Amino acid sequence: MKTRGLLISFEGIDGAGKTTQIMALKRELMAKGYKVSTLREPGGTEISERIRELLLDSSNCINPVAEALLYAAARAQLVQDVVRPLLNEGAIVLADRFIDSTIAYQGYGRGLDIEGLHRLNRLATGGLEPDLTILLDIPVDVSSSRRQGMLSDRIEKEGLAFQDRVRHGYLEMAGKLPRFRVIDGSLPEESISAIIIDIVVRFLKGDCGIEN
Amino acid sequence: MKTRGLLISFEGIDGAGKTTQIMALKRELMAKGYKVSTLREPGGTEISERIRELLLDSSNCINPVAEALLYAAARAQLVQDVVRPLLNEGAIVLADRFIDSTIAYQGYGRGLDIEGLHRLNRLATGGLEPDLTILLDIPVDVSSSRRQGMLSDRIEKEGLAFQDRVRHGYLEMAGKLPRFRVIDGSLPEESISAIIIDIVVRFLKGDCGIEN
Repeated sequence: MKTRGLLISFEGIDGAGKTTQIMALKRELMAKGYKVSTLREPGGTEISERIRELLLDSSNCINPVAEALLYAAARAQLVQDVVRPLLNEGAIVLADRFIDSTIAYQGYGRGLDIEGLHRLNRLATGGLEPDLTILLDIPVDVSSSRRQGMLSDRIEKEGLAFQDRVRHGYLEMAGKLPRFRVIDGSLPEESISAIIIDIVVRFLKGDCGIEN
Repeated sequence: MKTRGLLISFEGIDGAGKTTQIMALKRELMAKGYKVSTLREPGGTEISERIRELLLDSSNCINPVAEALLYAAARAQLVQDVVRPLLNEGAIVLADRFIDSTIAYQGYGRGLDIEGLHRLNRLATGGLEPDLTILLDIPVDVSSSRRQGMLSDRIEKEGLAFQDRVRHGYLEMAGKLPRFRVIDGSLPEESISAIIIDIVVRFLKGDCGIEN
């Protein structure tokens, strides 16, 4: 059996409930005795957090290519310093966004060449892909009503048409990549948690090879 | 005739005399009535300068891939915001390092895949290449004796073997790319300036299409 851990990424537009569901899954898996780590992108290393500041700072006017490259740089450092060591220890790593965010936001959202972005992802991660990707899918109007009254960062200010392109991109990827599971993010929180736990538990029993 | 400007990059290991020669060429070209701009990499825009700080800060432990991606991000912003507008105005742009530094330092120096770095450069610049590249070539022992007593940044601390791989990489590129001109950087400053001015003046009279 493999002793390597498991990388599960959570994707979806802002307000889809990724953070809430990651916390719920983490509690559940830890209660079952698994070693679980969570991380968010961009961030997770000293340099990646400094890149995060740059990216989310509304006052900066970053062009789409530079933006994609900065995300990739933060990811390269995170993968080497944090993700690979955790996976080597056999941990379950829950990632709040990963490579698919680059394709959805910079590719479908901003119109950069998608094949070029896949190459960029491979360069940044050395080819590491999630074992499982949970896409929390919500319509953009649900996203915007959930975020009402919250301070928007630079990315979130892009508007509904942008968010809609991103959502469409996620769904298109989900249709192509077997590691995706799409969950209706407008269901009640507890229902979503139950669905995710069921997916992950079945995955763990199946082919992932992690020993409890 | 083309009305587009001219991009001249200066390359070479640290201490080769790039900055001095750029200043000398700028004075000469301005005296001849050309519009001349100089820039340094990484830097030149607000974001690129912030990326520069990250890259040159000795206390950070940046991995080679993240480093290459950060340079590329700074370059993407610089090309769009500064270099292309200047070239569209017909300026002569003198760049203290450009795409070849990525190949020399991250490719030959740190051992990253060179074809991948070429793709990264094309992504960052949208395919823009220098019209002319002046390589100031010096042996690494000349470089290190010139820099004695100066504060070393993170890159410069890499040591002689690293600098030697970089120098070798530059010379290999110069052998392949017709836009390169190699000048012995251990000649007296004034001799080098005269050689560079001769090269550039002949280039301007030739096929570059800039009108004085």
